[in-house]
Amino acid sequence: MRNIDEHTITPAVISRQAESGNPRFKEIMDSLVTHLHDFARDVNLTEAEWMQGIQFLTATGQKCDAKRQEFILLSDTLGLSMLVVAMNHAKPRGATEATVFGPFHVDDTPAAEQGADLAQGAPGAPLFVEARVQGLDGRPIAAADVDVWQADDDGLYDVQRPELGDTRRARGVLRTDADGKVRFRTVAPTAYPVPTDGPVGDMLLASGRHPWRPAHIHFMIKARGYQTLVTHIFRDADPYLDSDVVFGVRSSLIGDYVKHAPGTAPDGSVAQRPFYTLALVFVLSTAS
Amino acid sequence: MRNIDEHTITPAVISRQAESGNPRFKEIMDSLVTHLHDFARDVNLTEAEWMQGIQFLTATGQKCDAKRQEFILLSDTLGLSMLVVAMNHAKPRGATEATVFGPFHVDDTPAAEQGADLAQGAPGAPLFVEARVQGLDGRPIAAADVDVWQADDDGLYDVQRPELGDTRRARGVLRTDADGKVRFRTVAPTAYPVPTDGPVGDMLLASGRHPWRPAHIHFMIKARGYQTLVTHIFRDADPYLDSDVVFGVRSSLIGDYVKHAPGTAPDGSVAQRPFYTLALVFVLSTAS
Repeated sequence: MRNIDEHTITPAVISRQAESGNPRFKEIMDSLVTHLHDFARDVNLTEAEWMQGIQFLTATGQKCDAKRQEFILLSDTLGLSMLVVAMNHAKPRGATEATVFGPFHVDDTPAAEQGADLAQGAPGAPLFVEARVQGLDGRPIAAADVDVWQADDDGLYDVQRPELGDTRRARGVLRTDADGKVRFRTVAPTAYPVPTDGPVGDMLLASGRHPWRPAHIHFMIKARGYQTLVTHIFRDADPYLDSDVVFGVRSSLIGDYVKHAPGTAPDGSVAQRPFYTLALVFVLSTAS
Repeated sequence: MRNIDEHTITPAVISRQAESGNPRFKEIMDSLVTHLHDFARDVNLTEAEWMQGIQFLTATGQKCDAKRQEFILLSDTLGLSMLVVAMNHAKPRGATEATVFGPFHVDDTPAAEQGADLAQGAPGAPLFVEARVQGLDGRPIAAADVDVWQADDDGLYDVQRPELGDTRRARGVLRTDADGKVRFRTVAPTAYPVPTDGPVGDMLLASGRHPWRPAHIHFMIKARGYQTLVTHIFRDADPYLDSDVVFGVRSSLIGDYVKHAPGTAPDGSVAQRPFYTLALVFVLSTAS
């Protein structure tokens, strides 16, 4: 296999993969190599552009750490994440739709009691959430884990605030009660730009794209016997609902954030400023 | 733009790129997004596979440092580098062919005098190289920079030996004399495996591929008025000439490494062990 040219290189690489002991891996790699080569041929990629690509990917990897996942952000902003979600989460009618996972979940999210204030000092208008988790049959799902994470009123997640160190706020994992419900206090989310201080920010700028996500709260709900649901509840009337930088908005996931004048809040406390309430129902589909 | 599904996501991303101020960047990104999405759809990529891909790319970036470029190695082993070289270096008849740049060039390669011993202690059989650099018209090209780098008899580049620190050996930049010639001593190169202690090694293993490159010496030749030539001279009779892991072998680039019994070497010294000589002609095409 010598003197390979730009036309023979693709079958040459694929034939070299013939000895893979993993048919699924080979299927993925064969398609990847074909599309990678077709891309380079389609655009007649120059060596300088190739080197820019190498440097971009290298910088993207090196931007990642325990609190930052720039490759997920790249996948999100190029629509790959939403595509993978859409292919893998065709839900039965009536089940809550899924959307992207995003780069800001952390694995060591603290457990929270019913009624807890997840905000823990995160700035923002008070928001009282009551969510019911149920099956397609409408019956409540008790003992489901409801993992919640969100940005604060400054548009920042806790992991984006170096001054917080490893302190976690505006996130928590609650467990549904016998009625399938969780109740918690947090802050109303606001729209925010994805981080633009890395390679993905450069890419968005060069693409003429804004970096904004409409305001939302993340939920990941796990219950025995049901498919795990990864989704958001968006805030109604957000100006970015039609141009989410990660293409994640579904009409069915826009919540009704009800604004209330100062007064007695759902937890019995007296709010000195306007507050919001949000009532949610999550419908899980059964595990296949 | 809400409720995007796996079919509408690709035009959605492309339409978002419409405001790019750089038409070439937009062309590249449009094609990239199309192929990336088609790849995911073709193989019905699962979320677990997507996450494996994210982790692979992240690890690849994080394996890179001043002495290691794992993304170039990935590009090389997937045939992308050779494809880009082939597309961009269609040479006129008679000009020396190009091949891949590889990940082991360093920018601070020391200058070397005519006749210098580039090996500087690198292990291997002595090799005496005389190379003539000329134009398509056969006339010598004086004052061309000839950048040479190679692995030693253990199959290692200097940058792969932590014990060497920043010491450079088995590399150097020479300048052609009035006859277009450079002469230097080095060691005969041997076949070697590309580094397999990183993500690319895992990929090769999973693909059932060996990691070997046939023995070669790298050359990058720059001369005013001529196209820069990046190429190798492979060693004849190498067992990996037909299965180079980076697909870089061209018949015209296989050198005639002549073995000699111990005795007087071309530089007048007396060799106590067998040594090799290699006579080369590099033909540069004129800059366009």
